[in-house]
Amino acid sequence: MPQRPHIDFWFEFASTYTYLTAMRIAPMANAADVTVRWRPFLLGARFKALGWPADSPFNWQPDKGRHMWRDMERLCNAQGLPLVRPDPFPQPTLLAARVATAIAKDETLERDALPRFARAVFDAELGKGRQIGDPDVLARCLSQEGLPTAMLDTAPTQSVKDQLKAETAKALEAGVFGAPTFITGSGELFWGNDRLEQALDWARREAG
Amino acid sequence: MPQRPHIDFWFEFASTYTYLTAMRIAPMANAADVTVRWRPFLLGARFKALGWPADSPFNWQPDKGRHMWRDMERLCNAQGLPLVRPDPFPQPTLLAARVATAIAKDETLERDALPRFARAVFDAELGKGRQIGDPDVLARCLSQEGLPTAMLDTAPTQSVKDQLKAETAKALEAGVFGAPTFITGSGELFWGNDRLEQALDWARREAG
Repeated sequence: MPQRPHIDFWFEFASTYTYLTAMRIAPMANAADVTVRWRPFLLGARFKALGWPADSPFNWQPDKGRHMWRDMERLCNAQGLPLVRPDPFPQPTLLAARVATAIAKDETLERDALPRFARAVFDAELGKGRQIGDPDVLARCLSQEGLPTAMLDTAPTQSVKDQLKAETAKALEAGVFGAPTFITGSGELFWGNDRLEQALDWARREAG
Repeated sequence: MPQRPHIDFWFEFASTYTYLTAMRIAPMANAADVTVRWRPFLLGARFKALGWPADSPFNWQPDKGRHMWRDMERLCNAQGLPLVRPDPFPQPTLLAARVATAIAKDETLERDALPRFARAVFDAELGKGRQIGDPDVLARCLSQEGLPTAMLDTAPTQSVKDQLKAETAKALEAGVFGAPTFITGSGELFWGNDRLEQALDWARREAG
């Protein structure tokens, strides 16, 4: 019997283009009958490995940054999404990524708890321009989705920290260099919101 | 009377993704009734300004490079284009860019001389894996398109060198940071082969 097609969706809350993906991947994957595993990681690890500044490349490459924000305006407009540029950009995403990791680890939560939290964070950050490094903002993201705010206490525990580190290492090992990245069951890697359709197609075809 | 819509298509022969654009932009622009101005420039100037190595970022970022080549395989396959990885990559593109500039300057040539030459070069380089730094290879690109091989003698003249430098400066000034880049009449900038459709749409809409 053929396996149900699936993809890993590697995401980072500091990635503006991942906001576009987060808001559209669930219905699209559902329509394509592909299971999505949401996997938070920290892209900063890759910048560090390259010796790059601890900042978004969109800040220290202002020409590329100007295009990104204008491109985001055009794409959010086409996708019917609000866009408010958070200040500072990028927002500190460590705490949100740890909460996401704690949610992923917790098997007592509903299966869609992580996507719901992630969408709430992206909406707060890029739809409303809020400070997602602030625990109160993340608490509201959790509670609006009916998720336990106690996740904020689990977030800084050693096992969650270790898991986020291990996941980030796995991402880099698998060839992830940006976000969003999609990896199919056979290891086919697609980078960028622009490749979501192709990644879902590929996953479907390889599962036969 | 509304102006006929147009876009500037900034291209660099070392850019793999520009091969995809070069091979599809003419019929698409024609169908959209948009005039395309092909504008060669040298992307290395931007890398130099950032203090980056005089090499393709796809080489010194091997993770990103691996994805690019695989992505190119998938996209060339979908577009029905051959892909042969040239060795070395990137190819030296200065001479080809100067020939392209000489063609653009020469008002006695047919209007589509530059696109024809550019497509022949991209096909030689990335469709056949040939050495486009070799004047003999470029001579064949010219002659197969019925263009004067004397363009190779015009290429290293001071006025052509100056024009290519000036064009490169104009590109960076306009916000170009990668290739392909499309800029509409009003200055709306789109980066990447993935944005060709949107750039043509935008140009059409703004021309009313």
